[in-house]
Formats: sequence, C-alpha cells, structure tokens
Amino acid sequence: MIGGSVAQSARQQGVCCEIVGVDHDEVNLEKAQHLSVIDFSATNIQDAVAGADFVVIATPVGTIEKILTELKPDWPEDTIFTDVGSTKNSVVQSLRQVFGSVPSNFIPGHPIAGSESSGVEASIPSLFRNKRVIITPDENSNRVMVEQVERFWTMLGATVSKMDVHRHDTILAATSHLPHIVAYALTDMLGQKDENNEIFKYAAGGFKDFTRIASSDPTMWLDICLANRGEIVGLIEQLIGELDGVAKNLKNNETEELFGVFSRANSARRRFLNQYQN
Amino acid sequence: MIGGSVAQSARQQGVCCEIVGVDHDEVNLEKAQHLSVIDFSATNIQDAVAGADFVVIATPVGTIEKILTELKPDWPEDTIFTDVGSTKNSVVQSLRQVFGSVPSNFIPGHPIAGSESSGVEASIPSLFRNKRVIITPDENSNRVMVEQVERFWTMLGATVSKMDVHRHDTILAATSHLPHIVAYALTDMLGQKDENNEIFKYAAGGFKDFTRIASSDPTMWLDICLANRGEIVGLIEQLIGELDGVAKNLKNNETEELFGVFSRANSARRRFLNQYQN
Repeated sequence: MIGGSVAQSARQQGVCCEIVGVDHDEVNLEKAQHLSVIDFSATNIQDAVAGADFVVIATPVGTIEKILTELKPDWPEDTIFTDVGSTKNSVVQSLRQVFGSVPSNFIPGHPIAGSESSGVEASIPSLFRNKRVIITPDENSNRVMVEQVERFWTMLGATVSKMDVHRHDTILAATSHLPHIVAYALTDMLGQKDENNEIFKYAAGGFKDFTRIASSDPTMWLDICLANRGEIVGLIEQLIGELDGVAKNLKNNETEELFGVFSRANSARRRFLNQYQN
Repeated sequence: MIGGSVAQSARQQGVCCEIVGVDHDEVNLEKAQHLSVIDFSATNIQDAVAGADFVVIATPVGTIEKILTELKPDWPEDTIFTDVGSTKNSVVQSLRQVFGSVPSNFIPGHPIAGSESSGVEASIPSLFRNKRVIITPDENSNRVMVEQVERFWTMLGATVSKMDVHRHDTILAATSHLPHIVAYALTDMLGQKDENNEIFKYAAGGFKDFTRIASSDPTMWLDICLANRGEIVGLIEQLIGELDGVAKNLKNNETEELFGVFSRANSARRRFLNQYQN
C-alpha cells in the first residue's frame, strides 16, 4: 500500500523515470506491473537496487534487518536509501547491527499517512499530499542526500520535519501506536461479547470510526508495537491509570472530575483538528 | 441535533403535519423555525405538548425526570410519548419516580444514530435511514402505541428492535458508552502531552477517526455515563485487564498472544462491517 503509493505519487509528480518494484509476494508484484504502478519487477533485492538512484524500503519494520543484511555485500554508496517505517529507533538499531553505524546514504524516514488497507491495489497516488513526513538523519548522514530525501517528499506534496529518532518514537507511540493497541484490545474484547450476545448489530458510526484502525494489518502492527515497546508500555500504563480514574469517578459520582476529562478532551481534539485541517 | 433530525425526517417522510419544537435555548429554537425544521415553537413544555399526537423527548437523559415532573399535572393519556436517550434503565427509573410506574403511553426508545455535533443546524433529515432503533416497551405499555412508535421509526427509514431495558443498556455500554469514555480519556491524556510537546502536529487520519467521538458534547455524555455507570464501570475494568495483558505481552515479547489479540480484533471488525454495510 505505502510502496505502491510512493511509486504512483512519484510518477505522477515526475520525480523519477523508471520504477523498479521488489516484493517477495509475486502476485502483488504482477498486480503492480499490471496496474502500471511499477515499470520493472524483481524478486531479488540486489538486482532491484543495482543502478538505482533512490531506494524506498516500504516493508514491515521487523524485516528491515534481513533486507539490510542481503544488501550489505554490494552496498551501493552513491544510492540514496530511505524507509517508511513507523518506528525509527528500531531501524537505526538494525542499521548499526548490520553496518556497525548508520551508513551516510541511509536516511531513515516516516511518512505519516496510510490507511487500514494493504496491497498495491489499495495504493493512492495522492496519499502524501498535505501530510507530514518525519526524517531522522544522524550526524553521519550525507547532507546532500538528506536534502534530496527532503525534496523527494516535498515533491510528493508532504511537509518534512527533521527530528531525532527518540522524539519521533515518543510522539508516534502516543498518536499512533497507543491508539492502535487500544482499538485492537477493545475490538477483540467486544468481538468475544458479540459472539455470545450479538452486540455489533447495534453498533453505529461512532464505533465504526473508533475501531477503523483495528482493521490494520496485524503482522505489520505486531512488528511496530514490538519495535517501539519501550515507549508504548509506559503509555498503556498511563492510560490504564486514566481509565481507572474515570471508573472511580463514575463509582463515586464525581461529576466535576468526569466533566473535566470530557471537556478537556473536547478542546484538545478541537486543537488537533485545527492543525490537521490547516 | 437529534430532535431537529427527527423533525426534518418526519416532515420529509410525510409522517406528520405540524411540528412544535420546545427548547430552553431560545436561539436554537429561533434557528429551528428559521430553517423550517419546526412550524411552531414553545419554551413551555405543557403548552407544546397540549393537543399533540406524538411527542419525542430528545434531551440529555439527565433532564428527563425534570421534564416528566413538569408534564405530570396535565399528563395527556392519549398522546404517544417516546424518547431518544442512550440509556433506557435510567429513563424507566425516572418514569417510575415521577408516575409510580411506566405510563402505558410512554414507550422508551433509542435511535442508534447521531454525530459528534450538537444543535439544530447539525440536524440531518436522512439520519435514521438504514439505522437501528431500539424500543423498550414494558408489560404495561399500550400495544397499539408500541406499534405506532415502531411504525414512526420505520417510516423514517430505520429498523426497529424490541428488547428489555437491561439488554439495551448492556449492549450500548459496550458498543457506545465504553468507546466514548476511552476516546475521552485518551484524548485528554494526549492533549496534556500536546501542550508540552506538540504531538498533535504529527497525528494522522487514524487518530482523527479514533478520537472523533471525543468531540461529542461533554454534558450529554456525562449524563449518559452516570445514568449507565452500573454497566460501564465493569467494562472499563475489563478493558483495563485487556490492556494490562497487552502491556505484559509486549514486555515479555509474547508475540503469539499479541498476534492473537490483533488478528481476532481484525476479524471481529470485519464481522461488524459486514453487518453495518448490509
């Protein structure tokens, strides 16, 4: 989905002339070629990367180390590498594991865009328009290449921010990883009630939106959650504390405290929407 | 929002000839008349109800007892009364409190439809089309009137189910009240982080949908949560248990258990979507 969207968007914006797609899933790869999302396909990573100017690794973060290991023997110093992983410390750790340090031509990145769907057929050429992309270059990074990665995403319509990996992982744990875990946990819990008691029949639009991210790919999200568990576990515990507080407020009829939570949440979301829409 | 939608929808479907709106908010009432949502307006409930065939009480559930108390002296036995409250036991308790038992012409109801917006300007004439409405008549209820309430909602495009108040409150606690509380608690918690750390700048569409219900009216939801706290508190505690389990799975690298939660949630949501869309 993300890889296909990068390809379609890059082609539409005239950012590149030839696009090579690599996937271990040959059916997906054939679809990509059939849909003209890519010009050439390869199932071997070394072949695909040979002669490339710009490589975007768009795989679950748990597979990055394996991919880097395959690329290491013929690592092309002049090719710009970036990725789209939702966790950045784990990617940097994989790079260090394989190369000893972050190669100057690998600029970790994360476009904050997506959908709950997977596969090349779900890819969207306008996916990155008006979205944010975070890149996390380090002191080793080739400055010209950092600028080129920045320009790449800007040409795809995104606003690029630079920050260090830990700030990235702290922010995304809160705004993305925690909500996914909560949506998964709640939907799993209610799914079991639904089996006995047919409750989903009476669920409406609010439930639909609240649980949309629970339709995200479980394999990809298992990877993300494990890769960033250092940040996520603390947030889950904090949310448990908040929920416990609300339960106590309800039991003790503490209306002011409850109203405080609800109305602060209300204004916080208004603040979010103002930023999101502008 | 709900009252205005009932009025617009009823007019559009030719269910009634004259619509009287009552609101303590005179500005809202003027808007309703200006938008031709209502034909006449009243700020006094007795005046509004005098001569009516069918009365829909669309106020926060916490105000129902007060409204019933005002209506009691001139309670019109031949008028059909219903309401749209998200909790039904609390409405029945209010009726018993005021009348000693549920009057045979008050048929409690709950259209499972809405939005996070409030006020007559947010009302939608098609709001109830393809939605579900639950009515909770009791043994006392006038059977003809029950059928008429059923027909009313059916003419507005909804599918009507009858069930007892406790089953209603159990189901809605799970599919609606709990998600609202979680969205409020999480948005409040992250809102405080946003103030120090600008995290909302990097939140995307998943976060937007997940937190949409946190934009719902805090006063209305305080009422709902207090009215159904007996059901809600247990569910919050159960969710805390689930989240605690996920946190432990993450800490102990229990990938199979995590994958189980994520993929069960995935199929549960697919099951919900299949019902929601059909």
